[in-house]
Order: sequence, then structure tokens, then C-alpha cells
Amino acid sequence: MAAKKKTKVAPIRIHVENNPTNAEVYHVTPALFRKLLRKMPGMAAKIAVSFGNDPGKLDDKLREAEILLTGVFDASTLADRAPRLKWVQSTSAGVEKLAPYIPAGIVLTNASGVHIPKGGEYAMTALLMLNHRVPHFVTVQRAARWDQAFASPIAGKTVLILGVGAIGSAAARLARRFGMRIIGISRSAKRNALVDRMYGPKDLKKALPQADFVLAILPLTSETRGLLGRAELDLLPRHAGLINLGRGPVIDHEALADKLRKGELSGAVLDVFPEEPLPSSSPLWATPNLIMSPHCAVDDATAYAERALALFLGNLKRYVGGRALMNVVDTRLGY
Amino acid sequence: MAAKKKTKVAPIRIHVENNPTNAEVYHVTPALFRKLLRKMPGMAAKIAVSFGNDPGKLDDKLREAEILLTGVFDASTLADRAPRLKWVQSTSAGVEKLAPYIPAGIVLTNASGVHIPKGGEYAMTALLMLNHRVPHFVTVQRAARWDQAFASPIAGKTVLILGVGAIGSAAARLARRFGMRIIGISRSAKRNALVDRMYGPKDLKKALPQADFVLAILPLTSETRGLLGRAELDLLPRHAGLINLGRGPVIDHEALADKLRKGELSGAVLDVFPEEPLPSSSPLWATPNLIMSPHCAVDDATAYAERALALFLGNLKRYVGGRALMNVVDTRLGY
Repeated sequence: MAAKKKTKVAPIRIHVENNPTNAEVYHVTPALFRKLLRKMPGMAAKIAVSFGNDPGKLDDKLREAEILLTGVFDASTLADRAPRLKWVQSTSAGVEKLAPYIPAGIVLTNASGVHIPKGGEYAMTALLMLNHRVPHFVTVQRAARWDQAFASPIAGKTVLILGVGAIGSAAARLARRFGMRIIGISRSAKRNALVDRMYGPKDLKKALPQADFVLAILPLTSETRGLLGRAELDLLPRHAGLINLGRGPVIDHEALADKLRKGELSGAVLDVFPEEPLPSSSPLWATPNLIMSPHCAVDDATAYAERALALFLGNLKRYVGGRALMNVVDTRLGY
Repeated sequence: MAAKKKTKVAPIRIHVENNPTNAEVYHVTPALFRKLLRKMPGMAAKIAVSFGNDPGKLDDKLREAEILLTGVFDASTLADRAPRLKWVQSTSAGVEKLAPYIPAGIVLTNASGVHIPKGGEYAMTALLMLNHRVPHFVTVQRAARWDQAFASPIAGKTVLILGVGAIGSAAARLARRFGMRIIGISRSAKRNALVDRMYGPKDLKKALPQADFVLAILPLTSETRGLLGRAELDLLPRHAGLINLGRGPVIDHEALADKLRKGELSGAVLDVFPEEPLPSSSPLWATPNLIMSPHCAVDDATAYAERALALFLGNLKRYVGGRALMNVVDTRLGY
């Protein structure tokens, strides 16, 4: 039999850049890449993958790369610096620092979904903490003060979810199991089986007074920046609690801290901040009835990088097959 | 028709004593009593109820009372002071301050069950807080330090429940929904459908090393006092977290604080303490990775007194009908 003649096709050049200042949890290592690639027969032959963890040298790689898998990087003048680049897969779900700078003709995909189930579970944790007055407990503990506070179970109470995406839906699923009522706001106001009542952005002021808890998991866009200012926070009942797991600048933190100090809100749980890392001089650290985590609470210690990579490789299969990618960002909307 | 001759029976004298130093959440008021009594046709005619909130004057009432509904009080020399007393219903689930002093011939019943579902829900909250590193977050927040910590979801992790009673079972039910593995220790080691593996007290040292989390909800008895000393805490994995919602003296707090300071345990959530109220001089307040609540976290703000009273009235119906009471305390065992 005559040997089949194989057409030699140049491999697809993929560059994976890890940010060395990020925790290792987020790193897509060569070992992890090899491990997941083994489950995709035939793919290894089609690609050539390079790895870097030095953003200063990223430009060398960009000149050759057709695909870039990375977190945040300086995407300005990308068209000049990356003449062959066709697709950027972000390892982060939020892409507000990338979306505005991606030139037309380059596809940006995000890692939305990477936070399930850790994100949903932490959102439920935060709801329970607020319900059970944990922000009060840690505040009086700081002052070595024996000061009781009582609560009733969470069943029947209402959570308003701002941004019913991947984490929001996972949170809604858990909150329903606890017997909570769920109302939501999404841009489309499209029905969602997990949400008892869905509103559009224009109905925010109608929704806020109904909330025992607000769970904000919004991307940062021109529409969401400053969405929860003093006027909006003033519409919440005094017993309400606020959670932010999305992006800090969605909330007016001065107004929030002021209301917490005055007891005009029961508590808040924040994972994101107006500036990150939050400077040690920020008054937020010592604000009463506020529990803070340093932008990590929704990120899975053992699965983050693997989930992000699995998402990328699923997309890579689609890319090679000429099919539409998942999680394509509308760079005009910003998510 | 001849009118039926009614035998005039003296009413059963019940005294309800509320402790004025306790939060109102715990008070069985005359209004609440009337409200619940309305659902028991015929009962009002059979009883004469007095109310007090001055433990100093309790003896006046004790001389007449056949039944006493109250929290903790000085039960020493009760036989002399309460010649007609037949039954004491505690409004508290833990009765370590009463059980040793109740004379033979007087029945003591406790309020076990009154903490469901608030107690189970708070236990689940504490498990989630420990899993998601909230004790770390509040500790670094106190120091205004941006210091990330990562965790994976709680599914598949193991909680060891010490004392699988009312709260323990409610917690187990919720923990199962989160996909946790549940092992337990109870005196009888009797099978429980909610618990994957039940051990007897002798197997404590076999169970501790398996635990990602320990949930202690034990009554205080001669067998449980000091149960978790340094040797036992040393059997826990370093990543483990500890919750105590039962009684403080079950744990050696010096050993616990030492292990938390050294990072030999991931965190702890305590609602009960060696001394209550905990003095402001206690080193526990500032112990790292420790979240404290002032003995109130399992008590339902809106339902505690009503649930305790409903439990009492259910027992009263049994008492009047000559049937065995629920929640009878074995005063020898202490719960």
C-alpha cells in the first residue's frame, strides 16, 4: 500500500502567560496543560505552545502568537504588537481591563463559569453570615465586647441578585434550597427559572426596597460603574445586608461605610474594592459590620486554573473545528 | 334532662419565671402564653398561671407551684422550698446548672429542639465560614493586611459532629445537601440515617484525624467536660476547623488558642465559652483565626420563646392526660 501523503500544516501557535504577581492558584502550568491535553487525542500535533511568566517579555511572544491565554495584560496597541493574534482567552471572568483595548478583528473570550461552584457557595456563605449577624459578631469581638444579636432563619427572606450570570445563578440555586425568595436584575430582564421575579436595570429602585440582602456580581462597565450610590443604598431597608463579589467600583464605598457606621444597614460582605490591593490607609478595614476578603473568595484553590484551562481547551477544539467560541465578550458592552 | 354535676377540681398551678437579665428573645410573656393557649380548647380552665421576672421573689411562687417553666435558677434545696413541685420545664436545652440539683420525685424536662432550624442553619454557616477561610479574612482585616487565602468547595469534605442531637441532626441534614461526608459521635453510637458513620465515645481518637471540621454540640456533663483537650486537638489535621455551639467547658480553650496562634488549626467558630459573659480581659477576643459570638447564635430572634412555650404546652397536655412527658432529662447523665 502506498503511504498516505500528509500535508504538512504549520501548528497553531499558542502562548500562555501567567502573571507572576498572582497567586499560584491562577497559574496555568505546562504540567497542567499536558495533563488536560492528554484527554484531547490529536490536538497536541496541531499546536505549538509556549509559556511565560514575565509580562515584560510578552511582546516577543506576541509577535508569533495566534492565540493568547492569559489574565490581565497591557492590551493597548495590541494590533501593532501582535500581528498574527486572532483570539485572546482571558483566565479571568471580569475583563474590564481588556475589553476596551481589544482591536476589531481579535476575539476576546472570558472565563465566565470558572467560579462555579466555589463562587456560588461563597455567595451563600455571605448570605448566611449576613442573616446570622456575623458582621456584628466580628465587630464587637474586635472591641472585646459581649453584645448579643439575634436573628431568625433565612427561609422566606428575599435576596436581590444584581447580575444573574454564572455565580449569580449558582447562588440562586443554593438560596432556593434554603427557602429564600429570589429577585434579580439583568440587562435583558429575561426570565430565569431560578429567579422568582426578574427586573430590568430601569427597575432597580423598585427592587431595592424589597431586598433583605443584595448580592452584587456585576461586571464593571460604563453602565454599572457607581450603580449603587447613596441614593440607591438609601432605598434598602435598615436591616438589609449587602454583598459584592463582582467589581468594586460598582458601589460608592464612602456612602456604604457611612451607612454601616450609622447602623443604617445591618452588614456588608465585600470581596472587591475601589482599589486593589486595598491600601492599608483605607477606612474600610475598620468599618463596623463589614467583613472583607482580599479578592479571592470566589476563586477555587484546587480547580481555578484547571477550570479556566478546560474552558480554553473546549474553545480551542471549537476554534480548530471552525465553530463559534464560547464566552465571547461583547467588547462594546464590556462583558 | 338533669344537668350534669361537675366535679370542681382545683386548677393546676403553673409558675412562669423569666430571667430579667436575659434578652427579651427568651421571655415567655403572658401575651404569648394567652396566644398559644387559645389553640388548646379546655386547657385554660384547668390551669392557674402566674408570671414573675424577679428571681429574688421566686420562693413565694415556688410554695404553691406544681409546675415551673423557667430558665436557669437556684435549684438547691428545691425540695424544701417547693413542697408541691412535680415538674420543672427548662426553657433552655442545656440544663447542666439544674440537673444536679433536682430532687428525686421532681421531673426535669429540657427545651431540646427549640434551636431547630436556627441552630442547624448557624452550624452550616459556621462550616461554610471555616471552609471558605473567613476566620483568616477577619484576622487579616483587623491588621489592615491584604493577604489572600484560597479554598475549594465544601462538597466531599468531612464533618465530625460531636453530639448528634437536635441541632446536630439539623446541621447534618444541611451538610448532606452540600455534599459533605458526616461522621458522628454519640453515647449510644446508634445508627442515624443522616450520619455516614457513627462512633461511640471511645472512638473519639479514631474519628478526630478524619475530620476536616469538628462541630461540637455537646451538653455539659461529667463525661464531656474537658473532652477536647490538647491531646485530642492535636489529632486534628492542620487544615481542620472547629465549631462549638454546645457548652464552653467541653474544650480546653488555652490549648485551642495556642494551636490557632501557631497555625496548627485553620480556624474556629465559638458561640460558648469557659466563662460567660466572657471577661474583656480574656485573650480569646484577639486570638487569630477565631470568630466568636456571645452565646446567641443558635437562638431564634422571633421564635425562641414561642417554640419553648409550644414545647411546654405540648408537655402540659401530656401531663394533664397522665402520659409520659417529652424531653425528660436523665439527671444522672445530665441531659
